[in-house]
Amino acid sequence: MDRERESRLIDIDRIRADTPAASWRAYLHNAGAALMPTPVVEALKSHIDLESEIGGYAAADRESGRLDAVYGSVARLLNAAPDEIALMENATVAWQMAFYALPFCAGDRILTAEAEYAANYVAFLQVAKRTGAVIDVVPSDAAGELDIQALERMIDDKVKLIAITWVPTNGGLVNPAAAIGKIARAHGIPYLLDACQAVGQMQVDVEAIGCDMLSATGRKFLRGPRGTGFLYVRRPLLQGLEPPMIDHFAAPWISRNHYQLRDDARRFETWENNYAARLGLGAAVDYALAIGLSPIEQRCRLLAGRLRKGLVAISGVTIRDLGRTPGAIVSFTMDGYEADAIVSRAAAAGITIGASDPSSTRIDAEARALPVVVRASPHYYNTEAEIDRLVAFLAGLALR
Amino acid sequence: MDRERESRLIDIDRIRADTPAASWRAYLHNAGAALMPTPVVEALKSHIDLESEIGGYAAADRESGRLDAVYGSVARLLNAAPDEIALMENATVAWQMAFYALPFCAGDRILTAEAEYAANYVAFLQVAKRTGAVIDVVPSDAAGELDIQALERMIDDKVKLIAITWVPTNGGLVNPAAAIGKIARAHGIPYLLDACQAVGQMQVDVEAIGCDMLSATGRKFLRGPRGTGFLYVRRPLLQGLEPPMIDHFAAPWISRNHYQLRDDARRFETWENNYAARLGLGAAVDYALAIGLSPIEQRCRLLAGRLRKGLVAISGVTIRDLGRTPGAIVSFTMDGYEADAIVSRAAAAGITIGASDPSSTRIDAEARALPVVVRASPHYYNTEAEIDRLVAFLAGLALR
Repeated sequence: MDRERESRLIDIDRIRADTPAASWRAYLHNAGAALMPTPVVEALKSHIDLESEIGGYAAADRESGRLDAVYGSVARLLNAAPDEIALMENATVAWQMAFYALPFCAGDRILTAEAEYAANYVAFLQVAKRTGAVIDVVPSDAAGELDIQALERMIDDKVKLIAITWVPTNGGLVNPAAAIGKIARAHGIPYLLDACQAVGQMQVDVEAIGCDMLSATGRKFLRGPRGTGFLYVRRPLLQGLEPPMIDHFAAPWISRNHYQLRDDARRFETWENNYAARLGLGAAVDYALAIGLSPIEQRCRLLAGRLRKGLVAISGVTIRDLGRTPGAIVSFTMDGYEADAIVSRAAAAGITIGASDPSSTRIDAEARALPVVVRASPHYYNTEAEIDRLVAFLAGLALR
Repeated sequence: MDRERESRLIDIDRIRADTPAASWRAYLHNAGAALMPTPVVEALKSHIDLESEIGGYAAADRESGRLDAVYGSVARLLNAAPDEIALMENATVAWQMAFYALPFCAGDRILTAEAEYAANYVAFLQVAKRTGAVIDVVPSDAAGELDIQALERMIDDKVKLIAITWVPTNGGLVNPAAAIGKIARAHGIPYLLDACQAVGQMQVDVEAIGCDMLSATGRKFLRGPRGTGFLYVRRPLLQGLEPPMIDHFAAPWISRNHYQLRDDARRFETWENNYAARLGLGAAVDYALAIGLSPIEQRCRLLAGRLRKGLVAISGVTIRDLGRTPGAIVSFTMDGYEADAIVSRAAAAGITIGASDPSSTRIDAEARALPVVVRASPHYYNTEAEIDRLVAFLAGLALR
């Protein structure tokens, strides 16, 4: 099925009815935080109501079936098993709990990519300072993607981790996650994939990718609540990973001088959680699965492609996206306008977009001498008309 | 002013009007998760609505003033400064971020109390295993409180931390937090106070206590949302504490090979947060401050005292609370009934109470050979009639 036909499988009218705000603003900021569909909002608010009626503990007990089901939903989303999933406060904590669990010694190498996210990179730097491990940045190829041949050449027995941001925060680049996974598996190197901007935008299959650990957020393309995220850890790796910090949920206190880590990925969780947010996350995952990640991915690419085509025609606009098949994050700059000024003016015109600071992806930004870039990120619930409205708005700016 | 007169300063009718569920159940489970008052529920839900109208980032921007004010509210609650406060996902993470930031070497001693909470104790055990540090439990005195003289005698230059749960989860004990603080200060030993069950129930003044770090939750006596907590770190200590895990919010990525930790306590936070929950927490703190922690404390003790007096008269009931001036957590067992059976039967009769498992406070529970104990925890919004209803219910059970 071709892209246009598959994207037409989405019942856009029903979806927009579930997204009331879409009728009064062009919301193209899904790489920041997407608009939550009604079932997500209802899941959040109805659990808060239940908590205020019967108390927070009784509410969690009563909804225990639905709360357990969230693990299954996330597992289906990733083609993983429920016991390989931990639900976390956000993607950063998910990523940290995996990364900081890994043992590093002086001289051990961490391989990462040029557009690695700032949150991860400062953690690399902290661990490098603490342990003497070394961070090696795999160069990008001519298209701007992580260079698979270079990665292969950099592998030696000191490489103890490959940690990559699949879809960087600052543009359309989609790194070759599965090709990286093949190399990681061939050499038996743990592979941690930051899928924060990928999950909900495209199909994610941990078996096809071959990653050992994957972290993601609820609030972006998944359309879940803020303050939600999850971690996947492949079962064989799980048993050997002691979380950097534990409580009695992660590791029950079995006798005075002993704790016993849980067998499943929930060893990375803590006892107390925001259950309303978890149910919201579950509703968001179920909503995406019901539509289908393949049609979602196709429609995202269709709309992002339409936006790039429109931008090309505007004088003074430079598209900043990298990669052979860019995704739904469209980054650009415009002569005569700071990115933040464009974002504010667009907001005033009822168009929500964002910006990405060079310090979020410092190595890539410095290599390309990027200023703050505008970041427009359509999703499946957007329309062609909204894309055209942004293009027309920018064309109007260019004329001034 | 005596206790009864001060507790009458509370406008119980207005408060119960803000707590609709209090009119149809006797909710005595505030040491688990209290009922949220209406302003907390409204703060949560209105922010979720705002997020679904304008998006999660714009909503946080629009509410930035109120979000900043949460730090001020928590600081007022503790007699601290706003820059000494970090808002966290829960009390456990708050405690962990402080505890795991402390450096320990082989032979270093951690002093704690008999009724220390399981979450903390397993973290001690993990760090002991990792570093060779030693956990020393300060004995309790005849009243069951941490023995101040024993603590003083145990101090030597290997003691690198005093970490105490102020109000343990399994009963009325209130450890002598301020007396511990005097000793910690006199010897220059960092003092980490777990105030999870204290905050919202009684006056908390970090200056009067002399603690260096304090962790607490929103959901218990503060009546805030689940999935909220906070950490206080005294400013002079803060600058020397590197968080165990960092992201680019805690530590901005200032140049390719350098990060710079924030100056304030927010170095223990991550970039992404559940802002609805934060606003709910702020509303809960403001609500408590408006009533006043002194009247709250007096009314809690009045109601808990009434409950203990009622329990004493019931044949077969054994009160399990320790300490000279027990607080609002009332723990007991009853001949012929498992704790969980009492909790279920009470629930069926419209009375919400809880239970505490020995594994939550293993050292104290083993020393006293405690089974699972029933835990009833009144709060200022409860009435004498609700206390009497629980007593009558238990008396009825005892007669069967």
